[in-house]
Amino acid sequence: MDPINRITVIAPVNIAVIKYWGKRDEKLILPINDSVSVTLDTSIMCAKTTVCSRPDFSENQLWLNGIKTSFSNPRLLNCLEKIKHIAADQQSVDPAVLSWKIHICSENNFPTAAGLASSAAGYACLVTALAKYYKIKTDLSILARIGSGSACRSVFGGFVRWHAGVNSDGSDSRATQIADSSHWPEMRALVLVVSDNKKHTSSTIGMMNSVKTSDLLKYRAQYSVPKRTDKMCEAILKKDFAKFAELTMKDSNQFHAVCLDTYPPCVYMTDVSHKVIEIVHAYNDMCGEIKVAYTFDAGPNACLYLLQPDVARVLTLIKHLFPSSSPDFVTGLGDIEETETELLKSFPIQPQTKDVIKYVIHTKVGKGPEVETSHLLNEDGYPLNVRQ
Amino acid sequence: MDPINRITVIAPVNIAVIKYWGKRDEKLILPINDSVSVTLDTSIMCAKTTVCSRPDFSENQLWLNGIKTSFSNPRLLNCLEKIKHIAADQQSVDPAVLSWKIHICSENNFPTAAGLASSAAGYACLVTALAKYYKIKTDLSILARIGSGSACRSVFGGFVRWHAGVNSDGSDSRATQIADSSHWPEMRALVLVVSDNKKHTSSTIGMMNSVKTSDLLKYRAQYSVPKRTDKMCEAILKKDFAKFAELTMKDSNQFHAVCLDTYPPCVYMTDVSHKVIEIVHAYNDMCGEIKVAYTFDAGPNACLYLLQPDVARVLTLIKHLFPSSSPDFVTGLGDIEETETELLKSFPIQPQTKDVIKYVIHTKVGKGPEVETSHLLNEDGYPLNVRQ
Repeated sequence: MDPINRITVIAPVNIAVIKYWGKRDEKLILPINDSVSVTLDTSIMCAKTTVCSRPDFSENQLWLNGIKTSFSNPRLLNCLEKIKHIAADQQSVDPAVLSWKIHICSENNFPTAAGLASSAAGYACLVTALAKYYKIKTDLSILARIGSGSACRSVFGGFVRWHAGVNSDGSDSRATQIADSSHWPEMRALVLVVSDNKKHTSSTIGMMNSVKTSDLLKYRAQYSVPKRTDKMCEAILKKDFAKFAELTMKDSNQFHAVCLDTYPPCVYMTDVSHKVIEIVHAYNDMCGEIKVAYTFDAGPNACLYLLQPDVARVLTLIKHLFPSSSPDFVTGLGDIEETETELLKSFPIQPQTKDVIKYVIHTKVGKGPEVETSHLLNEDGYPLNVRQ
Repeated sequence: MDPINRITVIAPVNIAVIKYWGKRDEKLILPINDSVSVTLDTSIMCAKTTVCSRPDFSENQLWLNGIKTSFSNPRLLNCLEKIKHIAADQQSVDPAVLSWKIHICSENNFPTAAGLASSAAGYACLVTALAKYYKIKTDLSILARIGSGSACRSVFGGFVRWHAGVNSDGSDSRATQIADSSHWPEMRALVLVVSDNKKHTSSTIGMMNSVKTSDLLKYRAQYSVPKRTDKMCEAILKKDFAKFAELTMKDSNQFHAVCLDTYPPCVYMTDVSHKVIEIVHAYNDMCGEIKVAYTFDAGPNACLYLLQPDVARVLTLIKHLFPSSSPDFVTGLGDIEETETELLKSFPIQPQTKDVIKYVIHTKVGKGPEVETSHLLNEDGYPLNVRQ
């Protein structure tokens, strides 16, 4: 342990291409089906967490995005307890250290308001930081899963599969890497952040209602997803983009279909989300092959997957169809010189009202969690930046 | 046959509470599952058709809503041919009459642009008029089905079930009446016509794509609908509104879920449709029991089912939440004195932008097709009203 007892880790966001929806165990967060995701580059989007414990701390404290937050979150407490338990078993640190109170400070480098899977990056980051802090050796994906289901996929870079598992203790419900971040270097993602004021059903509540009320969910979990997951892994390993994209779109649609089959229905996509779907299909039709895939999580934002050579054309199209008053409409890997205007003239869909898409994050496949040297807690164990 | 050889029939619109989606035979229009509908009062919405044939007509002619339209519609030709075939078999009219060309004039008394199931009323009306004209005795629901699947349900009043059947010739794919129009006199419908410029996938194309691509459709047709249909018939016979309403909402949502699971997805509901769903669930929650059901066909318009004592409150709420600049916002059975304002103050959903709902048709359960004495064709067999 360093003299001032701090560990800082960054962890990536992941966006599923085969969706996780429905738990068979609420407490252990065990899913009813496998899922597959792509881990996105931490240089564009990441969570960052510093942990620090000292004998003189009087209580556990938590700061999230610069705001002091209650520590009494059952999932957080559960993760911390499990990790300390493993550390005690493995005798990985001096037993005294385990009795000290802890300070945790965590931030996302992207707006949480964007509705992007921030809890996945957050819990992957937290458990990695704690595991390193207490020097334990264990399957981090299982620990991250206990914090937030899909977080288990953020402990690996590249392309990741979360195996639903069959054991009732969750010991086989873990993530494995299908291929690392260097496997398919042309893969890009464009996250289209949709302007939206609507309050959505939280995914925890939504899933619970789906499991309780949707006939179609059972069929999806038992028949559709297993077949699709195998095909998806194959498409990734073969770098078959058209297949990867088709499976991604079909699975996103089926996940939202199950949400709609829930009673009362959970609706996450808006008219703008559906316009993006229409645009992607029209673009692929025009190209005569599948060049872009869309996928939507439990919110209206679209994540488009595409290959690097198509980014310029697709960004040009998006900027044309979703006019924006923002000077920083495209962020991340950055904007790309517009090269083509022919496409825009003949495209069958007209430009939409201004600013229905807030901004676009241009990113790529990235690595798993990594240790950082710049901390969020000072040498006394208090946040360097606190929002009032 | 009257001296001037004219028969005029009016026929009702029906709105399904268990949806028809997917054919097992495109030509014969045989569905993959049973469906159930409510027939709506012809005094509010109906199709009206006059047929007339004469030895001196040189060609078959068709006028739809005052506009001369090509007769070479395969479904129309198919219906006419089948009916003439039966008439020849039954020797119901002089064989010469069957050789005469025919004039058909048909109108809806409601805007077709409203996207309301006008083809169901239209084909039920046409086959009833032709059957009466040629004096045949046959199952009209089977003939109407050949014109437009759901039209088979419009040949009866009240509550109607279309049996999918199993025979490959369609001889058992017919409608029967569950209960007549006097069975549940309190039942009312409010059709909310949503402003919408979007072009939707036609239901014929949509169904075909769903059958081809949706895994969930197979499960719906085989497992969900049969159970639900039996429960629906029971709820209707027992006049159990809460059960009727719950099944109606679940089935509408599942039908749209299957549309979304189609590749590429068929999307018929808009943000406004989903807002209506949210309002109905919030209203029912507030009442502590299910007082209103929503159902959506292949378009954004909502049909709400409710009982007469609740109409005033629900219309007051709709007018508050969907402000309109139209002086005739509520049509049909008419508007109702607003009695309550307490509800509006505490309702958890805010009023929407003006005019997102164009108008509301207030109607009730009605009878099947009936003969009328005021014709659409004059004594020479030409339309009384023709639009230029």
